[in-house]
Amino acid sequence: MTSRINIALNKLNSKGIECGILLKPENIYYLTDFFPTSKAALILKENPILLVSRMDYQLAEESEVEVEVTENFGDKLNLKVKKVAVEKKYASIEFCEKHLKDKKIYDLNFIQEMRKLKDKGEIKTIKRAARITEGVIKTVEGELNGKLEREIAALAEYKIREKTELAFNAIVASDENSAIPHHQPGGKKITGKVIILDIGAKVNGYHSDITRTFFLDKEPELYPIVLEAQKAGIKECYAGNNVKNVDLATRKVIREYGYEDYFLHSTGHGIGLEIHEPPILHKKIDGTLEKGMVVTVEPGIYKDYGVRMEDMILVGSKAKLLTRMKKC
Amino acid sequence: MTSRINIALNKLNSKGIECGILLKPENIYYLTDFFPTSKAALILKENPILLVSRMDYQLAEESEVEVEVTENFGDKLNLKVKKVAVEKKYASIEFCEKHLKDKKIYDLNFIQEMRKLKDKGEIKTIKRAARITEGVIKTVEGELNGKLEREIAALAEYKIREKTELAFNAIVASDENSAIPHHQPGGKKITGKVIILDIGAKVNGYHSDITRTFFLDKEPELYPIVLEAQKAGIKECYAGNNVKNVDLATRKVIREYGYEDYFLHSTGHGIGLEIHEPPILHKKIDGTLEKGMVVTVEPGIYKDYGVRMEDMILVGSKAKLLTRMKKC
Repeated sequence: MTSRINIALNKLNSKGIECGILLKPENIYYLTDFFPTSKAALILKENPILLVSRMDYQLAEESEVEVEVTENFGDKLNLKVKKVAVEKKYASIEFCEKHLKDKKIYDLNFIQEMRKLKDKGEIKTIKRAARITEGVIKTVEGELNGKLEREIAALAEYKIREKTELAFNAIVASDENSAIPHHQPGGKKITGKVIILDIGAKVNGYHSDITRTFFLDKEPELYPIVLEAQKAGIKECYAGNNVKNVDLATRKVIREYGYEDYFLHSTGHGIGLEIHEPPILHKKIDGTLEKGMVVTVEPGIYKDYGVRMEDMILVGSKAKLLTRMKKC
Repeated sequence: MTSRINIALNKLNSKGIECGILLKPENIYYLTDFFPTSKAALILKENPILLVSRMDYQLAEESEVEVEVTENFGDKLNLKVKKVAVEKKYASIEFCEKHLKDKKIYDLNFIQEMRKLKDKGEIKTIKRAARITEGVIKTVEGELNGKLEREIAALAEYKIREKTELAFNAIVASDENSAIPHHQPGGKKITGKVIILDIGAKVNGYHSDITRTFFLDKEPELYPIVLEAQKAGIKECYAGNNVKNVDLATRKVIREYGYEDYFLHSTGHGIGLEIHEPPILHKKIDGTLEKGMVVTVEPGIYKDYGVRMEDMILVGSKAKLLTRMKKC
């Protein structure tokens, strides 16, 4: 059995809970090295069992955990225990009504907590994903002028896919579209004032997420402000600091320039097996930054046009940039 | 307000329920034409309100529904009502504990039921997505020999992305990899016996999903069997028939040839705003096929190598193929 599964079991036992049911694919992967592509569940108990569909058997059997193929998850998940832990943020109300009636329900949130701290292998993988993303941004940068947003998105994704998987659909947003943080690239021709590229590669399940704002003509007025805000935020990414201080720092800079109302999202998020995972870096959310966390710092200002800068940071005694590419 | 929202409201009222909370992005989009890119909720009541984050405001304000920007979903979702309907398959146990305490909870599953029957506009959009997918399969078919699986996947996705969005990551599985239904394309060189291509474009939120099995040399033994099974399944896709008969029909053919144990999944699924949505076509699931449903029929046999054929069918008095491309 993997050591992660042992740690999870010990945590469960220390709370006096007999059994856990994991349904979230990322959590199952984290504990078993098997990423479900269809229905699956990990029964976390002394002898854990991975329940999978027939379709996933070949993939699952490489895991060290005992695998059982079932076509009837319904029966298999009706466990005869009094206390059970599930991923309360993930398991549905229907699941609860079907399988957890008359049981005392605990939360398996400690798996997500474990995932916050990346080990050496995970950090190496995330770095690989970041390197690929940076390479693709550099390639695409030279192609922007005169292309459609959608063409650039297609090219960026193609370049990622040649090497690995996509972390998410590329955001390519030019001029007024750059004022929409999650703009979907469309038929707009890129002519030049500002172009936001927000892209990411995924390697072995681990995501990267990098944003650069380009300009083909003169530097946009908002550009140095966002850069200054990002720098201030990154500085706060050290172990022991409160997560909200990262957001407060970027926000302070942006406020001083009078643009706080145009900063439409939180400063960043944890990243790993999910593109957005805890911790969320927001002024209203408390928590402690710990060594081994990987977070994004991505302030942005969205007015007539938008500027956003996003890098990935490894939290240590100091903040360590996982992205290497320079900004203008 | 859209007519769909009125229909949903009437259904709610007819059950004597004051209010519904929709969280599932596809359902929100179905009723409001706004597809959330971050946290959002639709409060379904006499004057419906779309709660969105600041980031999504620009996208949301194009909807006909009243939009309210909030940074505090927690408070906004604590409604002072006794009865409330939620998407029980989607809303989490945590959501229930936080927002639905001491309320009688009903299921909003009727939205998913409404979505099963596609209107003319939806069918037209799905057809467009299918046309793009077919075009890409034809382009890619000529490139297979000697390429890596991953290169073909990248090319197929690039060709889709030039025109629209991806419905899902392309499956490109050659020789022994074709025996894994959800194989992730990797560094294997395509030399020839069998190559499964399973790809799909998405247009305005609507998915397409088409699979073809190619061979560069002689026809694989399993090929005509899967073709015969698929034909038998498609024939059953007529209004009034039980959904399970589609699966029973494909399975019967495959059983007669002695391969039932190698057919690892159900015969098909509904398709629309989600790649997999109700109805599921499986021998153990009852239900009635209705005019306007769009389903896939995709039997497969997975032994030393795999063969799968997948087309999209519009249910009517007879089955109508939405995919046009011929099979060998």
